[in-house]
Amino acid sequence: MNDLSASPALIERLKSAVGERNVITDDHGREPFENDWRGQFHGRAAAIVKPASTDEVARVVQMLAKERVGIVPQGGNTSLCGGSVPDASGRQVVVNLSRMNRVRAVDPANNTMTVEAGCVLATLQQAADEHDRLFPLSLGAEGSCEIGGNLSTNAGGTGVLRYGNTRELVLGLEVVLPDGRVWDGLRALRKDNTGYDLKHLFVGAEGTLGIITAAVLKLFAKPRSQATALVAVESPDAALKLLAKLRESVGERVTGFELISRICLDLVFRHIPNTRDPLGCASAWYVLVELSDSTQGSTLDNLLEQALGSAAEAGLATDAVLAASDTQRKALWALRENVSEAQKLDGVSIKHDVSVPVSRVPEFIERASAALLKKFPDIRIVAFGHMGDGNVHYNCGKSQADQASRFYGESPEVNHIVYEVVNDLNGSISAEHGLGVLKVDEIKRYKSALELDLMRAIKKTLDPDGIMNPGKVL
Amino acid sequence: MNDLSASPALIERLKSAVGERNVITDDHGREPFENDWRGQFHGRAAAIVKPASTDEVARVVQMLAKERVGIVPQGGNTSLCGGSVPDASGRQVVVNLSRMNRVRAVDPANNTMTVEAGCVLATLQQAADEHDRLFPLSLGAEGSCEIGGNLSTNAGGTGVLRYGNTRELVLGLEVVLPDGRVWDGLRALRKDNTGYDLKHLFVGAEGTLGIITAAVLKLFAKPRSQATALVAVESPDAALKLLAKLRESVGERVTGFELISRICLDLVFRHIPNTRDPLGCASAWYVLVELSDSTQGSTLDNLLEQALGSAAEAGLATDAVLAASDTQRKALWALRENVSEAQKLDGVSIKHDVSVPVSRVPEFIERASAALLKKFPDIRIVAFGHMGDGNVHYNCGKSQADQASRFYGESPEVNHIVYEVVNDLNGSISAEHGLGVLKVDEIKRYKSALELDLMRAIKKTLDPDGIMNPGKVL
Repeated sequence: MNDLSASPALIERLKSAVGERNVITDDHGREPFENDWRGQFHGRAAAIVKPASTDEVARVVQMLAKERVGIVPQGGNTSLCGGSVPDASGRQVVVNLSRMNRVRAVDPANNTMTVEAGCVLATLQQAADEHDRLFPLSLGAEGSCEIGGNLSTNAGGTGVLRYGNTRELVLGLEVVLPDGRVWDGLRALRKDNTGYDLKHLFVGAEGTLGIITAAVLKLFAKPRSQATALVAVESPDAALKLLAKLRESVGERVTGFELISRICLDLVFRHIPNTRDPLGCASAWYVLVELSDSTQGSTLDNLLEQALGSAAEAGLATDAVLAASDTQRKALWALRENVSEAQKLDGVSIKHDVSVPVSRVPEFIERASAALLKKFPDIRIVAFGHMGDGNVHYNCGKSQADQASRFYGESPEVNHIVYEVVNDLNGSISAEHGLGVLKVDEIKRYKSALELDLMRAIKKTLDPDGIMNPGKVL
Repeated sequence: MNDLSASPALIERLKSAVGERNVITDDHGREPFENDWRGQFHGRAAAIVKPASTDEVARVVQMLAKERVGIVPQGGNTSLCGGSVPDASGRQVVVNLSRMNRVRAVDPANNTMTVEAGCVLATLQQAADEHDRLFPLSLGAEGSCEIGGNLSTNAGGTGVLRYGNTRELVLGLEVVLPDGRVWDGLRALRKDNTGYDLKHLFVGAEGTLGIITAAVLKLFAKPRSQATALVAVESPDAALKLLAKLRESVGERVTGFELISRICLDLVFRHIPNTRDPLGCASAWYVLVELSDSTQGSTLDNLLEQALGSAAEAGLATDAVLAASDTQRKALWALRENVSEAQKLDGVSIKHDVSVPVSRVPEFIERASAALLKKFPDIRIVAFGHMGDGNVHYNCGKSQADQASRFYGESPEVNHIVYEVVNDLNGSISAEHGLGVLKVDEIKRYKSALELDLMRAIKKTLDPDGIMNPGKVL
């Protein structure tokens, strides 16, 4: 990288490529693109460039590559790890894809749609719905995150148990490479064995190997019926056994299995209006179970009731409430979905987005909690998450706000304790959110030198000058 | 590569690594490892080496890499494209993984098993079954093919419609790299976003980037009930509409949707004993439909009957027979499964394993057939396959044996006509079987120069001396 990055000549060339008003250089205009939405990562860019087509992206990348200017690809800028924010140098250029927001094609008979990177996730869910199909990727930021970012971070969310991560939802990609060439890998094929699968290199690479400009996404049959229950269980281990038992009796209809501790619910009841405990007695742990079926008029409620009855007999469930209406269903989900918000209202906490094999979730919670309590006797652990995916959101704080802020300073030690247990159980220190700049140092401890070597070798092969999203991932 | 490959000193070192009797150098002993099972590809190796552990594979690869000897990784040697056969030089060494055949672990609560590359596919299906789980990969060669080969070729088969290709069935890999280092990527996680997804580079790379020695595979709930029907339809286009209609009414229960032309059935009736037409009148096209459900006692037969009734009303099905027993179900599947065998008994044919978007299968069949008939008026086209995956086995021959053999000489022109239509429809010239040596030249015509560049760059990065399965894929 050199100081030419912000040269007036380069800015002029960028303007000629994408139009004057799509190159933003003034402080006020740049600001929303330079900081993340949670206010945790702040940068300064030479310019924000907003191309409207693949061709424009390619021309912009060529111009920047020629002068070795660092490029920060950006979608809805909803990263939780600072993955889409420039550094503080003022020399990087943010390439924001939001103007590339066309659904290029929907092919219901092939169960696919071809979309541009800047499409907001919620609009894609809607586009699928208009063709009586499901695009199953669903997550908190869906109203503002963009599919290019979802692909680049291999986003998770609530549909993973049944449909997989974003990676599993893509058949083809179009990518502008770090030298400005365009790889047209927009295949819409269910089977294609003609060489290396390049698309999986770019999915989850967080923009460090190229800019994803378009994708062919899989569509599915829409779920026509659902049954939802909040189930009280004694422990994460009982929850694990309940999951196995449910799968035995209703198989792949289990589409949601969210573990929630009592502490989570108490926070929700305290901070979120119009929430209440739907069960009579408090329990240390709960599971939110959802079954789905793609056929109408099925007897899912009966199936779930029977399965929970037999789980109760086996001592796996101590109490349960089934949603009798869509309103009740939404109220149960609101308990789960408001945990993060309630916790935020209660004070800061040290968050971990980790995964272990599903079978080891109870052991992870037990061991991590024991280790933390030993060091921090008055710690408050808020654990919840996608148990069916082995993905636990494991957040640590103190119950009093003044203590909480001071406790935040202990992050390095808390992280170390949690991640060591994760590592012992062959888990991942970033299940859903990626590395960004947040975990770029941490990962060096937990990935083997060999794997880091391989990643660096691939980075060097595709991006020899290191201009694509510098400082992220590696 | 140099002439040291077969040096007595190297052979001795290999013997010291894996044991004397696991290095085969005599002509008779080498022969089954040097030729493919269909007798189409013949090679000559310096030696066959049969390591029994990852450590032994690593030592063998180190020894061979040091002297730049070409390495041909081999499992059950059931490739249809010559992917696991050495060249004729007598200088390459076949590293056969069949002795690495342990199931290292089964984790039913995580729905995974960790297996070694040399495990025969059918034994893995059985291992899953013993834990009341399904490992859904299923294909003709399952009694002898090995999972390392399935992974290296991203095998397809009959389960793809519901469960995806082999690629979708793997969570983690262990790979011996071309320099003999071992990458331990044996993660059993449903979510892990910590950098580039390296496993997808090795899956489908046909052994050209390293030797897969073990894998963590996904398991699923076992199907507890099935409903099967043979449906007469007027055309591939009617079949396509039937697929959409079925998915509308029974959603993801559609687990099999195989298109079969009348010519296929006639060949089966003629050559395979104990087969007969289960329907009264002949139809130009048929679909074998199967629904599956992971819950017992479901009413699948009723669902299928209703769905087919409403398809008949819509003019999409002209006749249908439902299997009333498991015997009848097997008899229906036997019609589909014996097409290849019947065709082989009838004479040689020019085969194509191609895919297009599902929505374009009718157009592919129509255009390819019209183009072929124009050039070869008496050609006989035998078309069948996994329509739900867009994967057509499109085989061309003549009805009389003497003409058939001569017609085989027209392969280049026939291939050209078929592949041009495939390419026009954004399809793949190898849907399931890979490239091997068979299609290594052909692919240069149909892949973009840029994509070939990227593949070569990755090959060079991981295997700079080009010793891994030389001459395959690239």
